[in-house]
Amino acid sequence: MIDIYAFATPNSVKVTIALEELGLAYTLKPVDIRKGEQKDAAYLALNPNGKVPVLVDDGLVLTESAAILIYLAEKTGKLLPRDGEARARVFEQLFFHASGLSPAFGNAGFFKRSSPEPQPIAEARFTTEAERILSLLDGKLAGHPFIAGDAFTIADIAHFGWLWRRQFPGLTLENRPNLSRWYDTVAGRLAVQRAITRVEALLEAPTSAA
Amino acid sequence: MIDIYAFATPNSVKVTIALEELGLAYTLKPVDIRKGEQKDAAYLALNPNGKVPVLVDDGLVLTESAAILIYLAEKTGKLLPRDGEARARVFEQLFFHASGLSPAFGNAGFFKRSSPEPQPIAEARFTTEAERILSLLDGKLAGHPFIAGDAFTIADIAHFGWLWRRQFPGLTLENRPNLSRWYDTVAGRLAVQRAITRVEALLEAPTSAA
Repeated sequence: MIDIYAFATPNSVKVTIALEELGLAYTLKPVDIRKGEQKDAAYLALNPNGKVPVLVDDGLVLTESAAILIYLAEKTGKLLPRDGEARARVFEQLFFHASGLSPAFGNAGFFKRSSPEPQPIAEARFTTEAERILSLLDGKLAGHPFIAGDAFTIADIAHFGWLWRRQFPGLTLENRPNLSRWYDTVAGRLAVQRAITRVEALLEAPTSAA
Repeated sequence: MIDIYAFATPNSVKVTIALEELGLAYTLKPVDIRKGEQKDAAYLALNPNGKVPVLVDDGLVLTESAAILIYLAEKTGKLLPRDGEARARVFEQLFFHASGLSPAFGNAGFFKRSSPEPQPIAEARFTTEAERILSLLDGKLAGHPFIAGDAFTIADIAHFGWLWRRQFPGLTLENRPNLSRWYDTVAGRLAVQRAITRVEALLEAPTSAA
């Protein structure tokens, strides 16, 4: 049985989308980051980095949402091409997401909403970078239906996680027709809708640290 | 023949280290980021994201240093365990590097050295995060010799790239004995020394954009 420690966050929803797409059974263990539960001692024993999500599968405790996506894809032989350029393109996009989109979105949101004092250069730096990344994705999606090529893969799932939460950094899909079309296609998948419903239910559930 | 578009940067050296470790022949194509050559039209045609490094191998054009590391490891069957927990740990560390260490180091350096005006909250945010990450790595390396377990892998290569350039964000390895021991071990490998010599030579070489 697979346990997922998670909350209604961009990185958490990626993992639940993959599990729903793959038809794997799992139990969600809520970690309420509004209460700081990801910094509780019991949770830090599971993930010293103090972040969600964490996967526990038959004794394996694995952190980092994209590493979990690869683990689940290789476990099932789905959502990640086995070789060739198609496989390389998935990894390319997973790292473009992890090193580019994700920190730009997260920091743009922080400096817009959470910084104790305005930091205008920092806010502009990350907002400009996030907009640049959205334009690159829109250009990429002009050439093929999904982000790494012709097939839906874990690269789409990774990007979808943060685009689903684009209101946090104050971003929109306006004037990005290819990205909008892609977003609607992914959001329309039944597995994606099930995954979103499950993580959003965590906002109402009683929680425990680990 | 493999071409690598690169400069003497943290992400570039990762790829040359992997090539030297794997014994693969390659040609370095200098892209002088001091002159902004990574934003030239000819280079953007190769990588619209405007960053180094880029690998070109038999018609495949691949960006994102960690995706290139995985490509080279899977091409040769080396530096990345084939299955099990050992494989998952490498991906976990590659994404911890890409989403955690790399943006923290890069942004700490930017706000310390390059911001047009001081942004003290931003500088503290990224410096504190970089220090936290160094402590996590030190703790990880208390338990095993390399960052993803008992073997030297592409996860060590990824982390080494930025730790080699730790002066940019003003960080040190002081009071982190396990990380210091690991750094010296990796830096002492002959392939690593050859790779560093080759990318540092780019600082002196005549350059062209693409």
